[in-house]
Amino acid sequence: MTNLTLALDVMGGDKGPRVTIPAALKAVSEYPNLHLILCGDEAIIHTFLSKNNQVNNPQLSIYPTTEVVEMDDKPSLAIRNKKDSSMRKALDLVSSGDAQACISAGNTGALFATAHFVLKTIQGVERPALISSLPTHNENKHVFMLDLGANVFCDSQVLCQFALMGAVMAETVEGIKNPKIALLNMGEEEIKGSDNIKQAAVQLSANDEINYIGFVEGNDIFTNKADVIVCDGFVGNVALKTCEGVARMVYTKFKTHFLNNLTGRILGKLLTPAIKKVFKTLNPDQYNGASLIGLRGIVVKSHGNANVTAFYSAILEAVKEVERQVPEKIKAKLEQGLLQRP
Amino acid sequence: MTNLTLALDVMGGDKGPRVTIPAALKAVSEYPNLHLILCGDEAIIHTFLSKNNQVNNPQLSIYPTTEVVEMDDKPSLAIRNKKDSSMRKALDLVSSGDAQACISAGNTGALFATAHFVLKTIQGVERPALISSLPTHNENKHVFMLDLGANVFCDSQVLCQFALMGAVMAETVEGIKNPKIALLNMGEEEIKGSDNIKQAAVQLSANDEINYIGFVEGNDIFTNKADVIVCDGFVGNVALKTCEGVARMVYTKFKTHFLNNLTGRILGKLLTPAIKKVFKTLNPDQYNGASLIGLRGIVVKSHGNANVTAFYSAILEAVKEVERQVPEKIKAKLEQGLLQRP
Repeated sequence: MTNLTLALDVMGGDKGPRVTIPAALKAVSEYPNLHLILCGDEAIIHTFLSKNNQVNNPQLSIYPTTEVVEMDDKPSLAIRNKKDSSMRKALDLVSSGDAQACISAGNTGALFATAHFVLKTIQGVERPALISSLPTHNENKHVFMLDLGANVFCDSQVLCQFALMGAVMAETVEGIKNPKIALLNMGEEEIKGSDNIKQAAVQLSANDEINYIGFVEGNDIFTNKADVIVCDGFVGNVALKTCEGVARMVYTKFKTHFLNNLTGRILGKLLTPAIKKVFKTLNPDQYNGASLIGLRGIVVKSHGNANVTAFYSAILEAVKEVERQVPEKIKAKLEQGLLQRP
Repeated sequence: MTNLTLALDVMGGDKGPRVTIPAALKAVSEYPNLHLILCGDEAIIHTFLSKNNQVNNPQLSIYPTTEVVEMDDKPSLAIRNKKDSSMRKALDLVSSGDAQACISAGNTGALFATAHFVLKTIQGVERPALISSLPTHNENKHVFMLDLGANVFCDSQVLCQFALMGAVMAETVEGIKNPKIALLNMGEEEIKGSDNIKQAAVQLSANDEINYIGFVEGNDIFTNKADVIVCDGFVGNVALKTCEGVARMVYTKFKTHFLNNLTGRILGKLLTPAIKKVFKTLNPDQYNGASLIGLRGIVVKSHGNANVTAFYSAILEAVKEVERQVPEKIKAKLEQGLLQRP
């Protein structure tokens, strides 16, 4: 790892510094070339660092801020009224070049809007998108899905740009050559779906730079049919959250089932590790970050209720994206004149 | 049960008569007041009945048809070119009043389009919808969700009518008084989502006849927050299929996990019944039917790869809807002047 500086929104997320600071300490202890700028309440950060004898750790610095973007703050108000928030400052540091990426577990809407406002999109990108990798049947393979909620509706041109950005992520972050790109639809037949999706299918089919494989349905998200699945933010968000909801329900049903009788309870005890292991793989944003891509800087969003491991993984995700120069590669692809609106 | 006559599309579904006829035999043997009209290839049906010594069963009659709507037939062509198909005739029998409901496991798009064409919508209903009940954390409660794919996009007025039709289903079929109605959205805050959903929220909030509780997200489909969840067909279809996809993936992961080592294999064997039981509750359209509502007749769609139990359950679902007069109750609600476009 070359020398890297990342800005952390220490105050963001349901548990704020109780999660973000231990994750930061773990990251710097494991990566000696990593430098983290901790944006947040100076006194609180100092207390945490001093408890851990890390006040003088040269890999850590504090950027004191006085405000916090709350989980229910409206995005527009966060931009306008919380200019000295930990979230805003972490993004400002990326914008000024003092940090190479920002990691936050804070309010998604506010993070998205502020990041868009502060960092701006890469030239040629019309809309940034929220992307994450999801588990599949094959333990060693993931599927990238975007947009997961940054944009409500996307026209065909925007969907095509998402396809391109998703392909860059799959290639650079997961090392998949010529990744298979699919559009999420309500059927596999060409005649199915909304006009924007049908138009995007035509545009993607005509583009030799993109390995477009056609439509997939919700049940095929996890079957490794595609490496990248493209949809608008509304649909992506519903699919992602439905996925979380089903996983949680199955987990509850197993627990209930095994609590019903003595044999069940004994079996349940024996099985707890297996059940936990399976379910751990199912909620990706619990252990990984989702990224805002299409911006002139790297922003990784950790889950609001992320634990230390999850936030630590989000830091590593940011490291990976910085090292592999994701924004630069998206820019280069777009400069080839691909997918510009005529 | 009062005397009932239902029309079965015997040829529909991946397995056609091999599934539909055994399900029909089971239904008539258990319900002496039930009469089933078997629409399909006369010779095939006769062979099945004669193998089971049921040729002279007075509860069964054959309606011979010469065509079959294939699973990949385009809806418009099915309507135009397959007027003597088992699917079409089963719907014609409902239209003529010779049967009180139609049950089919055939091509969803063709069934929807043909049913709409043959039966027409209830006066005041702008679009029919596909509705099904899904499992929840609470084993004894289900949640109704619509539209599951009959319509790509729905404006606010149509969403409000779906809310009303869903409420009628929850009240009459599940006996839920004053059912809680929610709109599926990408966030719970009022400012989130697309314009049609935000407008529908305003209209539903202003309607005293509907117990509208607000927006829910994908992860809340299964938590009993709402009794009825309303969305457009695209989103509903993606959510439903994502649900199926996750369930299948979890099942695969469990199997893989338990096959990995000897202890795992032994534990896995002990657990197979529990795992199967949990997963059986997760794929509702495998054991239950989805209904097309808003039409002047009852149409229950069984899953394309339904087995005998699933198709039998779809027959019982149709019986329930006939007995509880679902279309009549939707009509009555609409005649109260509720939710008419101004």
